[in-house]
Amino acid sequence: MTSQMLAPVLDHVDATLDETLDRLMTLLRFPSISTDPAFKDACDQTADWMVNDLETLGFAAEKHATPGHPMVVAHDSEGGGLHVLFYGHYDVQPVDPLNLWHRDPFDPAIEDTPNGKVIRGRGAADDKGQLMTFVEACRAWKAVHGSLPIKVSMFFEGEEESSSPSLVPYMKEHAEALKADMALICDTGMFDPQTPAITTALRGLAKLELVITGPDKDLHSGMYGGAAINPARVMARVLADLHDDTGRITLDGFYDGVPELTNAQRAQWDDLGFDAEGFLGGVDLSVPAGEQGRSVLEMIWSRPTCEINGMTSGYTGAGFKTVLPSTASAKISFRLVGTQDPDAILRAFEAHVQARLPADCSFQMLDTEGAAATTMPIDHPAFEAARQALTDEWPRPAAFIGCGGSIPIAGYFQTLLGMDSMLIGFGRDDDGLHSPNEKYDLEAFHKGIRSWVRILDALSRV
Amino acid sequence: MTSQMLAPVLDHVDATLDETLDRLMTLLRFPSISTDPAFKDACDQTADWMVNDLETLGFAAEKHATPGHPMVVAHDSEGGGLHVLFYGHYDVQPVDPLNLWHRDPFDPAIEDTPNGKVIRGRGAADDKGQLMTFVEACRAWKAVHGSLPIKVSMFFEGEEESSSPSLVPYMKEHAEALKADMALICDTGMFDPQTPAITTALRGLAKLELVITGPDKDLHSGMYGGAAINPARVMARVLADLHDDTGRITLDGFYDGVPELTNAQRAQWDDLGFDAEGFLGGVDLSVPAGEQGRSVLEMIWSRPTCEINGMTSGYTGAGFKTVLPSTASAKISFRLVGTQDPDAILRAFEAHVQARLPADCSFQMLDTEGAAATTMPIDHPAFEAARQALTDEWPRPAAFIGCGGSIPIAGYFQTLLGMDSMLIGFGRDDDGLHSPNEKYDLEAFHKGIRSWVRILDALSRV
Repeated sequence: MTSQMLAPVLDHVDATLDETLDRLMTLLRFPSISTDPAFKDACDQTADWMVNDLETLGFAAEKHATPGHPMVVAHDSEGGGLHVLFYGHYDVQPVDPLNLWHRDPFDPAIEDTPNGKVIRGRGAADDKGQLMTFVEACRAWKAVHGSLPIKVSMFFEGEEESSSPSLVPYMKEHAEALKADMALICDTGMFDPQTPAITTALRGLAKLELVITGPDKDLHSGMYGGAAINPARVMARVLADLHDDTGRITLDGFYDGVPELTNAQRAQWDDLGFDAEGFLGGVDLSVPAGEQGRSVLEMIWSRPTCEINGMTSGYTGAGFKTVLPSTASAKISFRLVGTQDPDAILRAFEAHVQARLPADCSFQMLDTEGAAATTMPIDHPAFEAARQALTDEWPRPAAFIGCGGSIPIAGYFQTLLGMDSMLIGFGRDDDGLHSPNEKYDLEAFHKGIRSWVRILDALSRV
Repeated sequence: MTSQMLAPVLDHVDATLDETLDRLMTLLRFPSISTDPAFKDACDQTADWMVNDLETLGFAAEKHATPGHPMVVAHDSEGGGLHVLFYGHYDVQPVDPLNLWHRDPFDPAIEDTPNGKVIRGRGAADDKGQLMTFVEACRAWKAVHGSLPIKVSMFFEGEEESSSPSLVPYMKEHAEALKADMALICDTGMFDPQTPAITTALRGLAKLELVITGPDKDLHSGMYGGAAINPARVMARVLADLHDDTGRITLDGFYDGVPELTNAQRAQWDDLGFDAEGFLGGVDLSVPAGEQGRSVLEMIWSRPTCEINGMTSGYTGAGFKTVLPSTASAKISFRLVGTQDPDAILRAFEAHVQARLPADCSFQMLDTEGAAATTMPIDHPAFEAARQALTDEWPRPAAFIGCGGSIPIAGYFQTLLGMDSMLIGFGRDDDGLHSPNEKYDLEAFHKGIRSWVRILDALSRV
């Protein structure tokens, strides 16, 4: 069931796609890398651009300073009925290794590929392209009908890619202004290019940087090698022992609170016909690297993980330097599921390091942080309404799926504002999020806007 | 026994120390980092300076181009008797991490420290300060007596800190010009600040850079984590398994050709009264990290080692990036003793990696290189003559010692030119070779020059 108001809005979206793309390109040109202080001004300018763009839609939009990058909050006062808060983030990942990009990451372009046209540039998919699908859907509704079919607020942060240090304090301080009936989040993907999805299970995240120190300075490996402890050797032991031979994570109590799939879940996931071979083959792999006896979908949706995200020690430049390093560092993250406790896992990791530490070495855990996994209550009628709207737009019926990534904001909406979230996005597995040559399919962007137009319509009848 | 000619030369060294230091400071200002192509011109200019300086001594000096950095060769035609070839290197190690230096590494200065005056700057000890002790000894002999007491040639390379790629081809091509009765090498240390030393056993070196590749690009650890193999995890396993729990290296056949100390060697080393606690304590360590049941002197002089000199993978910048890296790299070196075969050890390492490689990963071994250990024939009378000369200069009698570092040139002199080497140097354990704030004690420099003056005199009677 759709309203008569829907068709002209969809037509307007199709007719104005070029202008819509121009706005996205402008947004993508801002190098809003939140983790790197060198781009602080760029983040601020991106927030200004967002405020200005939302004002052209008739939203009351404001930029709010934080100790980090600013928040953008906007309210539309004209719509009635269900009140939704749409969330996205205007910051992007760093771009290194830059030499692997085939174009400047901040000089975006539409490119032809064997799989169709794509929007190439850092942030095209994560998350500027995605958040603009919703903004443009609102613009189309307003252009055609003068107002939105439901009450809409928007909330954009600029620190999602750098652990959102300002988010929780800001949400606590502005709880009243942010509270709505439901949150909408556009930072996830489709199940496959034909099958839209609402993500209803999100893994949590515990992360840290481990620094192990041995000698008090870098040493000549000829003079001291053999006698002085090498912290890189200690780090290798610590990291190697995090997994056993069957791919299980060895930390004490790590699997406490990890639920098994219900039969119903397993049946629904089996029905999806997930192409594990294609998923791994797309990145030149063939053998699932997780726990033996688990399917690839389980590995990425319902099982916890431990990954080394970065490590460095000693001399890493060109040529060779026979140094015995003073320190070794590694960035490590755990994806969490069910009721796993991030703090308990960080403590178990600390014990794991301590147990492998030679008498002469010391260690620090820096930037520790944890967020538990979240699960959405799909019995809310908005979920079924949105699923039908998505099914109307795409070739195949929409699915309720899990997500390997961590979107802590969904947990915060639940715990801080008592508000459930619908996670709907149009990303694809090959978008290259966090990687060189990130892209967003032009079809994802176009049909993503059309999808939100349909969802706004559908939610007006919930 | 010393000649009457000796005393006035020693007096001249003392009287002209300031000018001598000025020349060293000039030499230290050249940023001749051979491993980094950005400093190619600086290396070339350093060679020019050396040629010019040797010409002022009356040497026939030439700079010879190579595919890498130039060689400097100089002959003095006036001296007679024993013909020695003195070797040193004018290139230096990289200076990173630069933030740990308390002054510009290439703006050297004499500094007061609790242990006396030191010459601070990159290359002060390794090897510019050391090689100049010999050059200045020759200058003093010539200034006082007009000629040297023996026949002297000099040979300086600019690639010692970057694996000397041009050295062997050059030595083969110029064998006739380089051949002498014996080589002198000044790139080693004293036993302790009171005890001079002639190094008679040198560890060899096998080295490589290992690159392990998993997925064909960096991935989002949320999307792929758990299912895609992480090459950093594979690298950690490869590196952790290089040592067993007792500190022994696990490669197949690694200890083939490793000799046990003779009773005589053990007795001589015991007599040295080596301060293992002070050696490790000087770099904030206390527990020997090598094979259980071996003394620290054995660990650094007579036992082989395996060290991780550098490693890198994924995101290592500021902040956090939840990337699943495509590759992991490590620079690894083995110090070799006895008749260990570097090629066999590199093959054993390759098998070690292969045995731990998941089906989806590949690896490369880059910049592999090996040089066997060398042992000097101390029955040559020049060794006893030099030992007596050193004993005359310093508070305690000179010792024949081992050396943990690798000085492949000594092996090349043996195998390519059939020429033995005497390794005599004045470095101290706390010189910070290859580290920030490298220094050379002013006393080491001053008495080093005086030592060579005495050795030249002593060798005239061999």
